Parts: sequence; C-alpha cells; structure tokens
Amino acid sequence: MVEEVRTPVVPGSVARKPLVAPPRLLMAPGPTNLPPAVLQALIAPLTGHKDPAYLQVMDDLAALLRDVFVTHNAVTLALPGTGGAGMEACLVNLLEPGERVVIGVNGLFGERMVEIARRIGAEVVPVPAEWGQIVEPDAVRRALADGRTKLVALVHGETSTGVHQPVEEIAAIAREYEALLALDAVATLGGIPVLCDQWGVDLCYSGSQKCLSAPPGAAPVTVSARGMEAIRHRRTPVASWYMDLSLHERYWLGERIYHHTAPVLTMYALREACRLVLEEGLEARWARHARLGRALMAGLEALGLQLFAAPPYRLATVAAVRVPEGVDDARVRGLLLDEFGIEIAGGLGPYAGRLWRIGVMGYSASEPNITLVLAALAEALRREGWRADGGAGVAAALAALRE
Amino acid sequence: MVEEVRTPVVPGSVARKPLVAPPRLLMAPGPTNLPPAVLQALIAPLTGHKDPAYLQVMDDLAALLRDVFVTHNAVTLALPGTGGAGMEACLVNLLEPGERVVIGVNGLFGERMVEIARRIGAEVVPVPAEWGQIVEPDAVRRALADGRTKLVALVHGETSTGVHQPVEEIAAIAREYEALLALDAVATLGGIPVLCDQWGVDLCYSGSQKCLSAPPGAAPVTVSARGMEAIRHRRTPVASWYMDLSLHERYWLGERIYHHTAPVLTMYALREACRLVLEEGLEARWARHARLGRALMAGLEALGLQLFAAPPYRLATVAAVRVPEGVDDARVRGLLLDEFGIEIAGGLGPYAGRLWRIGVMGYSASEPNITLVLAALAEALRREGWRADGGAGVAAALAALRE
Repeated sequence: MVEEVRTPVVPGSVARKPLVAPPRLLMAPGPTNLPPAVLQALIAPLTGHKDPAYLQVMDDLAALLRDVFVTHNAVTLALPGTGGAGMEACLVNLLEPGERVVIGVNGLFGERMVEIARRIGAEVVPVPAEWGQIVEPDAVRRALADGRTKLVALVHGETSTGVHQPVEEIAAIAREYEALLALDAVATLGGIPVLCDQWGVDLCYSGSQKCLSAPPGAAPVTVSARGMEAIRHRRTPVASWYMDLSLHERYWLGERIYHHTAPVLTMYALREACRLVLEEGLEARWARHARLGRALMAGLEALGLQLFAAPPYRLATVAAVRVPEGVDDARVRGLLLDEFGIEIAGGLGPYAGRLWRIGVMGYSASEPNITLVLAALAEALRREGWRADGGAGVAAALAALRE
Repeated sequence: MVEEVRTPVVPGSVARKPLVAPPRLLMAPGPTNLPPAVLQALIAPLTGHKDPAYLQVMDDLAALLRDVFVTHNAVTLALPGTGGAGMEACLVNLLEPGERVVIGVNGLFGERMVEIARRIGAEVVPVPAEWGQIVEPDAVRRALADGRTKLVALVHGETSTGVHQPVEEIAAIAREYEALLALDAVATLGGIPVLCDQWGVDLCYSGSQKCLSAPPGAAPVTVSARGMEAIRHRRTPVASWYMDLSLHERYWLGERIYHHTAPVLTMYALREACRLVLEEGLEARWARHARLGRALMAGLEALGLQLFAAPPYRLATVAAVRVPEGVDDARVRGLLLDEFGIEIAGGLGPYAGRLWRIGVMGYSASEPNITLVLAALAEALRREGWRADGGAGVAAALAALRE
C-alpha cells in the first residue's frame, strides 16, 4: 500500500520548523492567560475518553460547574467545542423548525443567535436595541404578547459592546408567557454573578477561555429540568448529532454511552480552572472583577477615552471604548502587541476600527495587568499624537482600586 | 451585584482537590500517547485567535495538513471539534434536505453517518455489509444506478471492526455517476496511505488523536474544488453555523474573518503533530504502521485469538479480535488498565463485550509497546484460565517484525 508521493511543503519552510509562540499578556475579552495549575493539567497524562479516571474527571467537572453556574441542574456538562458551539447547542436543542423564538439583539452575539435560529428554521423575532444599550424588558414583553413563544434568548454580557444585560425582569416575563429562557454567559460566567437557578434560566452556556481562564475549546452548559423536558418532548430529532444534548447527557450521566472522543486535556484544564474559581470563592471572584473593571474604566476615562456602553449597564468583564478621532486602531493595537506583547481587541461588525475592547477576565484580571495595559495604551495614544496623560490614567485606576 | 450563594460541592470533596490523572499506555484506537514536542506545544504561550502569530500557525497547519492528506486542496483546515464534528461537517455541508446520499455501512461509524444524514433530512441509501467485511463496489454501483445521487460516503478504516476499506474502485464509480465522494479517515490519516487527490476524494476528514498523535479536540478536513463548488451552489443555508465550512474557509484563508475562538493550544499541538508526521516522512510512517500492525496481528493469532476483520482487508492501525468464549471482557480490560496501566478498547454497538480493539497508531505504535500489550494480554488471558502461551505471542510478533 505504500506509494510514493510529492511533498509540497518544502522541508526548509516555516511550517517544517518547530512552533513559535510569542509570550503575550492577553487582555482581550478572551482568551486569557492561564494559571499554572491549568497549564499543568494540559500536560497531565492523557487517558482515554472511557477510562474510569477520566469519567471521574467528568463527574468532578460537572459538580464544579454546578457550583459555578449556581445551579442544581443534573444536566450540567461541557461540550467539545467553543462558546459558539454552546450557542448552537442551545438553539438547536430547544428549537424546532417553525417554533417562535424571541432574541434580544444589541450586539454581534445577539445577531449570531438570530442567524443560528434562522438556519434551524425557527420563527425568529429579534428584539433589537442599539449597540451599547441593553435590551428593554418592555420590548421583550411586547414581542411575547404577539405570539406563542417557545424560547426567549438573551446575551448576559455582550462581548462586542461591553453591555451588562439585566436578566431577572426578563426571566420573570418569559415565565409569565410560559417561554423557556436561554442565557449566553460566555463573557460573564466566573466573572460576575450568573445565578441560573435563582433567575430561572433554562439553558445557560459559556466558553472555557473567558472568565474561567481555561484554554479555548470547551463550552460549559447547564440545562434545567424544564429545559430537558422540552428537549425530550421534541417532535423532530435535533438536527445536529454532534450537539444533541440528550446524547451528551447519556455520556456524562448514568449510562456513560460513548458519543464522541472527549477533548480530554481541555476538560482536565477546565476542571482545574473551575476548581480555582471555587478556591478563590465565587463572591470574592465577582468582587475582584467588579473592582478591577471599575478601576480600568476609571483609568480609560482619565485617559480621555469614551466608554461605549450606557453607564448603568457597563460590564465589569469587558471595557469597550471608542477609538478617538484621528487615531489609527490597527496601529495602536499593533504597537501594543509588538512592543508590549499585550493583546487587546478591536471592534466587531459595524464597529470594526471604531472600538477597543479590553477584558477584565479571570487570571488576566489583576492590578499589575490593568496598570500595564493603561500605561501601554497611553503610550500608544501619545505616539498617535493624541493628548493622553498616561500618568493620569494609571493614577485614576489606582485611586479607584483604593476606594 | 455580589450575592451570597450556597456552594453544593463540599470543600473537602474529590472535585475540590487537584486533578489526578494516572499514567497510561494508550493502545486503544485513539487517543494515543503524545510525543514530547506535542506536549510542549500544549503549554507554549497562549495567543489570541486573531494574533498574527496564531494566523501563522494556522497557515503552517494548513500547509502541513495538505501534505498529510496528500492534496493540493486550498480548503484544508482543522475544525474546532472531535472527529465526529468532522463527520457532521462533511454531511451537513455537502447535503441538503431531500438530496440522495449513498453510505457504506459496515460498522458503527457508517451507521453514525446514516444517523447524521437522516437528521439533515437527506434521502439516505445505506449500502450495508456485515461487520468485519468491506463495502462491495458492486453494491455501491447498484445503489448509484437506482437514482440521481449527490454524495457517496465511505469509512476508510472502520475503527469498530478493524476493516480497511479500499477506496479507488468506489471513487471511480462515484465519479462515473457524477456523485461527490466523502471519506472518513479518522482511523487512517497519518497511519496508512490516504491519497485524497489521487483517489479523487471530494471531502476527507479525520481526528487529531488517532494516527496523528495530537490530543483529541480537532478535526482535520480537506475539501476539493468540486466539493467547495457544491457547497457554494447550495440552495439552502448549511443548517449548522458552527460547522459551516464557508465560514471556516473565510477564517482560515484570505479574509481572516472571525468565526469562532479557535482552540489555540489544541491547534498548536496538531501543528506539531503534523510536523512530526512529515519529519518521519509519510512513506516511512505508513511502512512503520504496516509492519507493526502485521506484528501485532501475528502475535494475537499466536495467542490463539481470532482476528475479526476479513483477511485481505485488515486495517494496519486497528486490530480487532474476538473475546474468546468463557473469557470476561471487562475483567481483562480492567486488569490491563489497573495492573499494567494499558488501555485497549472493547467492542462497540452489537459487539460490546465481544471484541477487543487494539490500536497501532502514531506515537503509541512502537515495538516495545506492541510487545508489552501482547505480554500483558497473555497474562490477563492466563488468569482467566484460558490457554494462552504468552511467550508464543511475543515471539510471533518479534518474528514478524524481523521479516
């Protein structure tokens, strides 16, 4: 069977040389830098996906995730994909073709929900709000009053805008109209309170690489009994085999029926990341993110930058600021990356080139890191000829930290 | 926003303690043990998914994968999911509801293709063969003669049975009937020849954790120009946003448009794994797997065990043997795991408890490992009271190696 083949990649080419990965301070809204225990988990001995030792890791991870989601939901697990896989799993399991879904849309991730729900063939009712604003409960109520609705879907923290969407009032409205509630907690889980049971969230998903500070590649998901009931009573099979939560449930709970080859090392890392979250303590962690988020925003404003999100709804975990007039977005981010080794994010969708987004997430969220990103940004702005007083930015942040 | 919550996981519980992962020799058909360079890549500095350094890693990986798939296909990339994600991506992109697909079914993974294609709403025509046998080209021809067909899908190496499916004749038949050809190379890529361009495969997918010896969590995929043309001319959108290959293409090639947060470390690891594959050389690697596969099978037969796959079509990378009458499958595998730290796999589906499946894959495939698994299996059989001459098994394997 062995046959001669041509090898198009020249042996001397870059691809044939060992990997080069530059050290970075990751201050975009995910991924973050990884804590030592998480790194260690990545090179722990790999086991098979049906090894009793790995099944124990799954049990541990499920238990830890229940705490992190503040839920008693039996079906609490991590999917073998990114946060986007979590979003798709949410919609493809809870919706059948033709069913009505009301989706809050105030940024890119709300838009993505709409796109996914449309591909499923659902009747999609977007509840739009301007980017930078929250989705108004009254608008959700009006959409629900308009027709029998299976699901209301919200983005808790809009990574694209830095908006913190309040959930409780809309959750009560959804329940009043007997709709399920799905929550995207990709940018918030482990950073600010996500209280699944207390709020009555039926399906909540997140990503491993944001406030939890595990590497990207796993999507924590929790489903209420009511949510699982809805999935079990579907008239049509879930269009996706890979995302079918009933199959994942059988692998994670009880019968342990093989579904996929788990990304074992990523799950190890997520287990350790969740353990560290609880070791710090949820309340302490939320307080840390709140305090550092305030400090960063104070610093950014002291630099003369304008925060994008509407004031009472600013997300502690993502600070979005407008790129000042006359300042080149790409040049500033390039300088931060090349000279300081710091990654921050640019704007998404219609705000490409017009926003910077800085994460206050997990292991990357520390006083020195906030200080450094402010100092480096001030220097980059100065080189752009913009009036930025770097000292003032750092001082304001430090003052906010002392409050 | 900080609120008091109850923490159901008791601080002293197992989940709250650091990860425990026992060392294992992984001799199931994937995952395998990881080479040092791959381990090192997993803890290389994490970058963002839009970092120029990471985009370079993607370019490198795409180039390396083209060599590994022996193809010039532009659209060659790795999906953020397991091999099952590769299968789903294949079918959900190439098939639209109502389109006819002919699927060879001679094991669990062929059955899974049928299940996925049915969920998509395709008209599924299974071409069945007994487990342990190949799918016959004539049977595929008859199925194609029966109606206009969009796609023929085959499993190259049936992990559930250890059967090596010949591809070329069926590829020619598919082309004759103007159908696309999809190939599941999960158990074969990097182990035995997978000649995508030469055979005329339109979409081929694999998993990272088998013969490539990267950790599980990425699915290499390559799509021919003809395959991409079919995707671009779909009448309906791809039902899955996460798996939509046109969106992945935009992220991997040219525009670099953000789609998902890549599992960066898993991709680092896969890049290094592919580099090692080419460093060894494809031909040398195929020869190694062929030689070690023959040796393992000779050893298993010398132990008195009966190979499952029909003789001329035995897969070098997966040896499937019947569990002898009166021997307890679970007890044997438990002993291998607990006393020797060796994982082999059991049977799947109707063969649960009736087969053992031993991988000859990537970094796990070495003379000492083959020798050890034979010696350990002989000891386990001896304890089951079964007439196994361990010395004969090892001697036969070593003799085969010297041939």
